Amino acid sequence: MREGVPRLGPAPREAYLKACWYVAGWADRLGNEPQDRVFLEEPVALFRDEQGVAHAVGGRCPHRFAPLGQGRVVEGTLACPYHGLRFDGTGACVFNPHPGGQLPAARLPVYPLVERHGLLWIWMGDAAHADPAAIPDFGWLADPAWDVVRGATRAEGHYELYSDNILDLSHANFVHPALVASAFTEGERRFWQDGDTVHAEYVQMGAPLSQGIGAMLGRVGELQDFYGEVTWHAPAVLRFDFIAGPPGTPREACTLLPSLHAFTPETPDTTHYVWATGRDFALGDAGFSEAMRGALEHAFEREDMPIIRDSHRLMRGHDFWDLKPWVLNGDGGGIRARRMLQRLIARERGQDQDSAA
Amino acid sequence: MREGVPRLGPAPREAYLKACWYVAGWADRLGNEPQDRVFLEEPVALFRDEQGVAHAVGGRCPHRFAPLGQGRVVEGTLACPYHGLRFDGTGACVFNPHPGGQLPAARLPVYPLVERHGLLWIWMGDAAHADPAAIPDFGWLADPAWDVVRGATRAEGHYELYSDNILDLSHANFVHPALVASAFTEGERRFWQDGDTVHAEYVQMGAPLSQGIGAMLGRVGELQDFYGEVTWHAPAVLRFDFIAGPPGTPREACTLLPSLHAFTPETPDTTHYVWATGRDFALGDAGFSEAMRGALEHAFEREDMPIIRDSHRLMRGHDFWDLKPWVLNGDGGGIRARRMLQRLIARERGQDQDSAA
Amino acid sequence: MREGVPRLGPAPREAYLKACWYVAGWADRLGNEPQDRVFLEEPVALFRDEQGVAHAVGGRCPHRFAPLGQGRVVEGTLACPYHGLRFDGTGACVFNPHPGGQLPAARLPVYPLVERHGLLWIWMGDAAHADPAAIPDFGWLADPAWDVVRGATRAEGHYELYSDNILDLSHANFVHPALVASAFTEGERRFWQDGDTVHAEYVQMGAPLSQGIGAMLGRVGELQDFYGEVTWHAPAVLRFDFIAGPPGTPREACTLLPSLHAFTPETPDTTHYVWATGRDFALGDAGFSEAMRGALEHAFEREDMPIIRDSHRLMRGHDFWDLKPWVLNGDGGGIRARRMLQRLIARERGQDQDSAA
Repeated sequence: MREGVPRLGPAPREAYLKACWYVAGWADRLGNEPQDRVFLEEPVALFRDEQGVAHAVGGRCPHRFAPLGQGRVVEGTLACPYHGLRFDGTGACVFNPHPGGQLPAARLPVYPLVERHGLLWIWMGDAAHADPAAIPDFGWLADPAWDVVRGATRAEGHYELYSDNILDLSHANFVHPALVASAFTEGERRFWQDGDTVHAEYVQMGAPLSQGIGAMLGRVGELQDFYGEVTWHAPAVLRFDFIAGPPGTPREACTLLPSLHAFTPETPDTTHYVWATGRDFALGDAGFSEAMRGALEHAFEREDMPIIRDSHRLMRGHDFWDLKPWVLNGDGGGIRARRMLQRLIARERGQDQDSAA
Repeated sequence: MREGVPRLGPAPREAYLKACWYVAGWADRLGNEPQDRVFLEEPVALFRDEQGVAHAVGGRCPHRFAPLGQGRVVEGTLACPYHGLRFDGTGACVFNPHPGGQLPAARLPVYPLVERHGLLWIWMGDAAHADPAAIPDFGWLADPAWDVVRGATRAEGHYELYSDNILDLSHANFVHPALVASAFTEGERRFWQDGDTVHAEYVQMGAPLSQGIGAMLGRVGELQDFYGEVTWHAPAVLRFDFIAGPPGTPREACTLLPSLHAFTPETPDTTHYVWATGRDFALGDAGFSEAMRGALEHAFEREDMPIIRDSHRLMRGHDFWDLKPWVLNGDGGGIRARRMLQRLIARERGQDQDSAA
Repeated sequence: MREGVPRLGPAPREAYLKACWYVAGWADRLGNEPQDRVFLEEPVALFRDEQGVAHAVGGRCPHRFAPLGQGRVVEGTLACPYHGLRFDGTGACVFNPHPGGQLPAARLPVYPLVERHGLLWIWMGDAAHADPAAIPDFGWLADPAWDVVRGATRAEGHYELYSDNILDLSHANFVHPALVASAFTEGERRFWQDGDTVHAEYVQMGAPLSQGIGAMLGRVGELQDFYGEVTWHAPAVLRFDFIAGPPGTPREACTLLPSLHAFTPETPDTTHYVWATGRDFALGDAGFSEAMRGALEHAFEREDMPIIRDSHRLMRGHDFWDLKPWVLNGDGGGIRARRMLQRLIARERGQDQDSAA
């Protein structure tokens, strides 16, 4: 974040779902140096203590408002880069290097942070309800049976536009022609809900494999049966299984490329985008991994992101529904997810008002 | 427009003259690829159908708000870059590649677009009143008797500041000393109206020719008689004739360099600037053309634009008249044009209200 | 200021102290070319007349709002870059190059400007009260007994955050560890007022000298006695004396490095930062000077400025006191200065209202 903290309004402009798990980043990228982030328009500092446990605390020093995540970790505590106050993972000020050295009693906000499957998951709501059992299962990310390529970036555009993008796989033919081709544009699709989860399934038999994935699988120019399965977890954590095999192959015997697409709002206009794709073949082949990583990064950062950025700008700050979007055959997933999220946010805010009353 | 769609407010901030012809760009720069533009704070997509006819439609896809002008032309229709809906020049959705494939009945906005004299002219108002006969005559742009150099750029600053700039040729001595020198600063000037058109005329006898134009005309260091004629067509399309000849030469026998300066508002703070200058000598001399193009581009983009950008910023969002500008001898054209435009906009809005009532 | 005039609101957003001396820049950097600046959200043009006397006038031409400070100096007057009107140091229009050439009677705003100790000092309030005797004494800047290194830059962040930074020397150990080390973090400190001036004093005996200053003084690895003295003049002009010597050295016999840190608000979010540091040894040693200048520029521009920029952004536009900052032992200077400035501004505005009544 070389360009500095994003500019923020006096208070968050948008109502977010807070009592849920957001992806805060890749666990192994949080090392000895802390990180400064903005999630849901709130500054957050991430750091590891001496036991290596990752913590998330409010990212603004209460003394002179410096970005704590730009500080240093000293003896397992987070030291402010400006005047050296140190905070522990409970948000308590544990060291004041200045003469006198009294420790202020007030605390930083603390956000439950869980390290699982190679990811850091952060809970921005009431800590009392933070149940790690609610974290979606991405076990393949940490399973040696899978080789994983991955990335993390900041993207312009509202986070719901990014989850819409994954739920509507039909875009792939137009946005990623070299990589995905028509696999998910013309086939059958089905959308349904399961509790708070939304599912999208795309099935297309005997369609051409793209140059890109054909080369990856060693099946250039072959027809394939395709299955695309997307699972959306509120508010914007998605799994996408790309499944393909020679015509007639049983689905379970097809090649599976599972993906994670996790979107965490930074501001109403910007989104943290964390992604990964796994494979269970060519394990340990670094050249293969690098080619795959490059192709996916190109698809997400050079093909998806500019279109979503400009779609976001063309919405001109209007509410999605107020713009009366045309509903096409591929929108069943995105619309279910948007409505579900709306309900969850309304419910959470209703509860907040109840508990405030 | 690599940097993406400009950021726009929820609705246009400014009242523009809509029932008039604006320059949308150079016709030959619209080829097989569509273009995305913003005119009068409205997104527009330009494309050519299979017959080569250019069309202008609303630039935001009604499905998911993607920038249509970043799509592709497929079989003469404009295909959305995101999910592949296709639209024809009437704004109708003519192809839905998704299963089911119903065609929504709603249409894109359509803007009359006329190709004339090498330019695309767009009408942003009620199409029923779009009369191509009202397009100003720039026949020399397409006349083989003239060689034309030209350009197109985006400029920061309100479009009226840009037309003021051309109407007041006296700036040339200060902003473009190498190119124009004092030709139009000290001579006589006359301003008048003719219907909705505003004219400015500058006459100066026996003044020094600049290094730049002197070299161009092969008359370095000579005195010349100068005539500068500017014609303004609402809202901001101007012709400027630079006329010079040895002292005593009849005006009709002098060298004429006609110019087009067309300004189309993108936003209240940014302007599309399309320009051209012609000559009827050194025809076919590519080196001459390139030197001339370079000198003019430097003058417009490096000399005019920064001053107008900063003048715009120094207005701090205030209305021009509220700032009580000093009126000098060269302002007769700009002031007439501003008042005319104000009247035309008020009249148009009055009509709109009448027809709405 | 290649990127153009900063964007300004319709009127200043903030209440500044106006009847006081601000640093407008280094005197010797104002030569034959004028300069355009924004101080206190007002555009200002600086130029020298034929006698070499520096003047400050309103930076927006009343004709067409061009940035006068981007013009030229012609016969000791400031010529507008756009249409050539010329103004003298009294703000009067003294030349109109256009036919007719009447001189408008209205005048530019004029700001008292004094050249002293190598600096230009500007008074943004009622000129009748501009008393050069109130300019703080920085005689060492112009005294041949001192070699001075210096700089000037634009910094993001509110100007009071920048004066806070100097008044609380305890930051040096954290922000500038290589340059200052712990000299002012653990010792005693004392803060007091003296009329409208605020003082901060830091004393620490027998502490380690940093690598950076140790190398500069030829005393690497030695313990030193340290004295840090900061004097704040409203609104944001500070002197900082760094004093160090071998343990037991009388204070007057220690090495003194005096510094100027002058902050002039450009906008509520940006600050002109003018700094200098002197030494009375290694006089005339250009290599020494260059190393010293580089080290200080690095400290101010690469270490202080990013933290203060981000602290400013993390304040999210809130008032400093509304954020209930924790008060530490090093804040006695900054808090006194903030309160003093608040009183001075309130007093000035009260007077303005009285005189308006």
